Amino acid sequence: MQQRIINPEDLAFQLYELHDVEQTLRFGRYSDHSRETLQAALDLALKVAAEEFATHARLVDEEEPRFENGRVTMRPEVKRALDVLKDTGLMAASQDYERGGMQLPAAVAQMCVGLLKGANVGTQGYAGLTIAAANLIMVQGSEEQQERYAEPMMAGRFFGTMCLTEPHAGSSLGDLRTRAQPRADGSYRLFGNKIYISGGDHELSDNIIHMVLGRLPDAPPGVKGISLFLVPKILVNEDGSLGERNDLALAGLIHKMGYRGTTSTMLNFGEKDGAVGYLVGEPNNGLAAMFHMMNEARIGVGLGSVMLGYTGYLHALDYARERRQGRPIGEKDPNTPQVPLIRHADIRRMLLAQKAYVEGGLALCLQGAMLVDEKKHAASEEARKMAAGLLDLLTPIIKSWPSRYCLEANSLAIQVHGGYGYTREYPVEQFYRDNRLNPIHEGTHGIQGLDLLGRKVSMADGQFFQALMHRIDTTIGEAREHDRLAESAGRLEQAIRAMATVTDTLNAEKASGNAEKALANASLYLDALGQTVVGWLWLRQGLKAVDGLNGKGGQSAQFYEGKLKACDYFARYELPGVISTSELLKAVDTTALDMVDEQF
Amino acid sequence: MQQRIINPEDLAFQLYELHDVEQTLRFGRYSDHSRETLQAALDLALKVAAEEFATHARLVDEEEPRFENGRVTMRPEVKRALDVLKDTGLMAASQDYERGGMQLPAAVAQMCVGLLKGANVGTQGYAGLTIAAANLIMVQGSEEQQERYAEPMMAGRFFGTMCLTEPHAGSSLGDLRTRAQPRADGSYRLFGNKIYISGGDHELSDNIIHMVLGRLPDAPPGVKGISLFLVPKILVNEDGSLGERNDLALAGLIHKMGYRGTTSTMLNFGEKDGAVGYLVGEPNNGLAAMFHMMNEARIGVGLGSVMLGYTGYLHALDYARERRQGRPIGEKDPNTPQVPLIRHADIRRMLLAQKAYVEGGLALCLQGAMLVDEKKHAASEEARKMAAGLLDLLTPIIKSWPSRYCLEANSLAIQVHGGYGYTREYPVEQFYRDNRLNPIHEGTHGIQGLDLLGRKVSMADGQFFQALMHRIDTTIGEAREHDRLAESAGRLEQAIRAMATVTDTLNAEKASGNAEKALANASLYLDALGQTVVGWLWLRQGLKAVDGLNGKGGQSAQFYEGKLKACDYFARYELPGVISTSELLKAVDTTALDMVDEQF
Repeated sequence: MQQRIINPEDLAFQLYELHDVEQTLRFGRYSDHSRETLQAALDLALKVAAEEFATHARLVDEEEPRFENGRVTMRPEVKRALDVLKDTGLMAASQDYERGGMQLPAAVAQMCVGLLKGANVGTQGYAGLTIAAANLIMVQGSEEQQERYAEPMMAGRFFGTMCLTEPHAGSSLGDLRTRAQPRADGSYRLFGNKIYISGGDHELSDNIIHMVLGRLPDAPPGVKGISLFLVPKILVNEDGSLGERNDLALAGLIHKMGYRGTTSTMLNFGEKDGAVGYLVGEPNNGLAAMFHMMNEARIGVGLGSVMLGYTGYLHALDYARERRQGRPIGEKDPNTPQVPLIRHADIRRMLLAQKAYVEGGLALCLQGAMLVDEKKHAASEEARKMAAGLLDLLTPIIKSWPSRYCLEANSLAIQVHGGYGYTREYPVEQFYRDNRLNPIHEGTHGIQGLDLLGRKVSMADGQFFQALMHRIDTTIGEAREHDRLAESAGRLEQAIRAMATVTDTLNAEKASGNAEKALANASLYLDALGQTVVGWLWLRQGLKAVDGLNGKGGQSAQFYEGKLKACDYFARYELPGVISTSELLKAVDTTALDMVDEQF
Repeated sequence: MQQRIINPEDLAFQLYELHDVEQTLRFGRYSDHSRETLQAALDLALKVAAEEFATHARLVDEEEPRFENGRVTMRPEVKRALDVLKDTGLMAASQDYERGGMQLPAAVAQMCVGLLKGANVGTQGYAGLTIAAANLIMVQGSEEQQERYAEPMMAGRFFGTMCLTEPHAGSSLGDLRTRAQPRADGSYRLFGNKIYISGGDHELSDNIIHMVLGRLPDAPPGVKGISLFLVPKILVNEDGSLGERNDLALAGLIHKMGYRGTTSTMLNFGEKDGAVGYLVGEPNNGLAAMFHMMNEARIGVGLGSVMLGYTGYLHALDYARERRQGRPIGEKDPNTPQVPLIRHADIRRMLLAQKAYVEGGLALCLQGAMLVDEKKHAASEEARKMAAGLLDLLTPIIKSWPSRYCLEANSLAIQVHGGYGYTREYPVEQFYRDNRLNPIHEGTHGIQGLDLLGRKVSMADGQFFQALMHRIDTTIGEAREHDRLAESAGRLEQAIRAMATVTDTLNAEKASGNAEKALANASLYLDALGQTVVGWLWLRQGLKAVDGLNGKGGQSAQFYEGKLKACDYFARYELPGVISTSELLKAVDTTALDMVDEQF
């Protein structure tokens, strides 16, 4: 079962060879760790994932949570798995020791989460949201809020949510209407309706801490007038004991195509006198506070996509090895036995595409996680700033690239299974349904494209974009030294040159006041730059594979050969698309912009 | 509701302007028809689709058929809708008047089916399979079989199925094992297990007629030893009355990701003395007999994909017009009202892509249907042969292109809806799940690619491929005369030149005995040639739109402008991908072929 969540050889390669996570151990914060302790945490997460999470993934899809008598009921396996997880201490994997945490490097902590997501994204959702909400309190909240709320969350006694969306305002957060009335005691009373609140109600934990965006009475309109509030389901007394039920009610459950194990709820705050809430951080600074955590949340979404794609790939691989079907081209004798599916070139192409997507996506997400640590702990301020800038730049790609390509991997996994893949007897169709959420939540592709092209590439005079290009150029230079990688290096160079020109062109268009035109194809820009960045991560994997074949690595020769072929695949099958997209972008195409409502 | 199944203006444009279906009325068979009678049939189908089919599409997804006490139970709305359909006579839309049919041209008959599929693909499945099985009997069966079985099927009293797949042999039909023992009375007794039999059991009709592939005792191995049998669920007496229950049993239902309204069954033939069956056509010629009908069945799959994409597009369009969200780029004042989603360039891009896919796909499927009639009824044998060849060539594209791009349209429809699109409160997620079957059944993409590149492009010395290229060239020549189309014509010319070279290269590779290498990327070839063909159909739509704007057409100016923009979209956003894929194909890339099992 564990081998169907991740290929352990790839995990070791990515963490210890490609990203060299051991280098983070030079940061004081991680000095107590060693490769052995990191691996122990990963092994533990993998064991819990395989034994407690994967085992009921189908069950919570088939019997999703129900709304009965004002309460949410769900399969008991969910609570059991989360209780086991709580007991392992993995809920607080990235937190300080003195907060009960494991103080793990971000890449390892994220990876532990990723393994759980690959096993059962529905059940992991409750823990994931809790960790995200707790992290938010740890960064933005007062000392008291940290102790009273975040600590029980990290211990798994309280769970948490993020309450952003309202029925009339999805991606347009500036339009949210939830009101917060100040009270004499410094608390607030909240009134408003929120939707799509994952884990918004359940009986998995003693309490639920909602992180709610709302408006103060005197708040300016739009995004500059949003504040962040902490609203417990059950009020918590000063001594940490539970008090009264707060004035917030579950209005209903939303039923989804996938991700069914995680309840998606509608919550009404303040049907009576108002829900008691506490301001977190500064007034009118709620969106910035929320976004402070968004980089990590978005890496989480990307990694979730990757891991759903990854497990689907491994299932397809197993199936293709076991299932006999048809004969090789040229074998005309029907009396010969049927061959395993993997003997067919088209099946291998589909498996290779999946490998390229999921291992490329994993490299991308782990790159993000490495930057999270560098940003916080690198020795010089300059290095910290650079890491922070690169992370900001890459975040929309980390969020969106896997949610497109690893969803495509799930579709290919279905295709490898043929008719069986479409049935609910095999898990691949569920991975596909589950993964379809990822291009939507935490900012759609459209939103990520605007973020990348509208803000990120030009921030700080484009210095982080330039730095990224420079890093990619360096890799290309190194790869050119190796015959085996020269072709891939050449193709990546073409892609990066094209994207550099496109970026200049579109920046100039923006600078001339034509922002709407410049951004009209931002989603395509996002995709093309994403492909380029993943092409870079593949070339870096290629370099490490060459090292490995030269005895400088810990994996098998066949493994490294596979990496080289996946690197070839990416350069030959995927990167050429960047060139054609770049032509369209360079021309500042307005086909869609010019389309008029009445012409549809 | 009707407007959410199809845009009536587009339907009229496609049938009467683009494909000029009225020209088929010159064929004697259709001489009693007029545009009015064709339109009356379409209006009837649309009315039944909207009022009887669409109304329970979600219901049969939520409450799929169940296996209880050896029987299949399902929602009563299914039978009601099918009874209404039966009463309209639409089940036999394409059949002769004397068989109780409507003798409609293929394009119109297919379109009637398509409207029902767009409304409720699950319920339509029962009728669609019945029509397909009846058509098979009409072409391959004896006079007696036609009267005793096909006529009650066309009248909707009996329903039908196609029984091909067996558990150990999916796409590899040559490996099927069902045995047929001859009896003294000329009948056979069948023994074997079949899976994925859609509509394999139910109580919607008085009887079910299974068209079963099996082997005679002395049959040669492989595909050359397959015969076709007619196996009724209940034996039919000479006078047409029902006799004894035949020896075949429902072994279970298969539960699917989508298409849930259509039962997918496992059937056991001959658990006792053998299921009584009758040979249809010649012994050992069953696969050819079955494939005789496959062209039409595959157009049906393509059109089903298109119509699921089409209805999704129309739902997304309505949503984008109604839902207000965010503000235009450059509008910084949060006090201004939110604008409809359609005001955002990225939303328009996604709608335009959907329009290009679904209207392009519809043009493609109707082109196939026009060829079905030309093949049967064109005046000269030469014209009939040419039509038959072109249809054979295009069939893998008609089957597969919509099932990729119109599935993508469904994904974009979800994306336009944002979070709502992922919920089961909106229908777009169901369209996406339903449509995911289409790349699999009736031959996967992989199978279609091998069929196209391995057989179709080179059949008859490539003359049909050449004829297709010539037709595309002619369209390009005409389009060049119009400034508004010159760019699209140029881009299509690039694509077609590239595909011509690729085809020569791969044919030469095959001819040199390297079939495995030549076919290693057959799926990509299928995709690239499909894009080229749909690019051609878009250019033809562009030509008709120019005519329309010059007063030679029956639609509005805005409609024609929209067609021109969708033609631009296709040429600018889609065709460049053909060029990059063609480079890979021209290089006879072996990346996937060279990948070794152990390297995954």
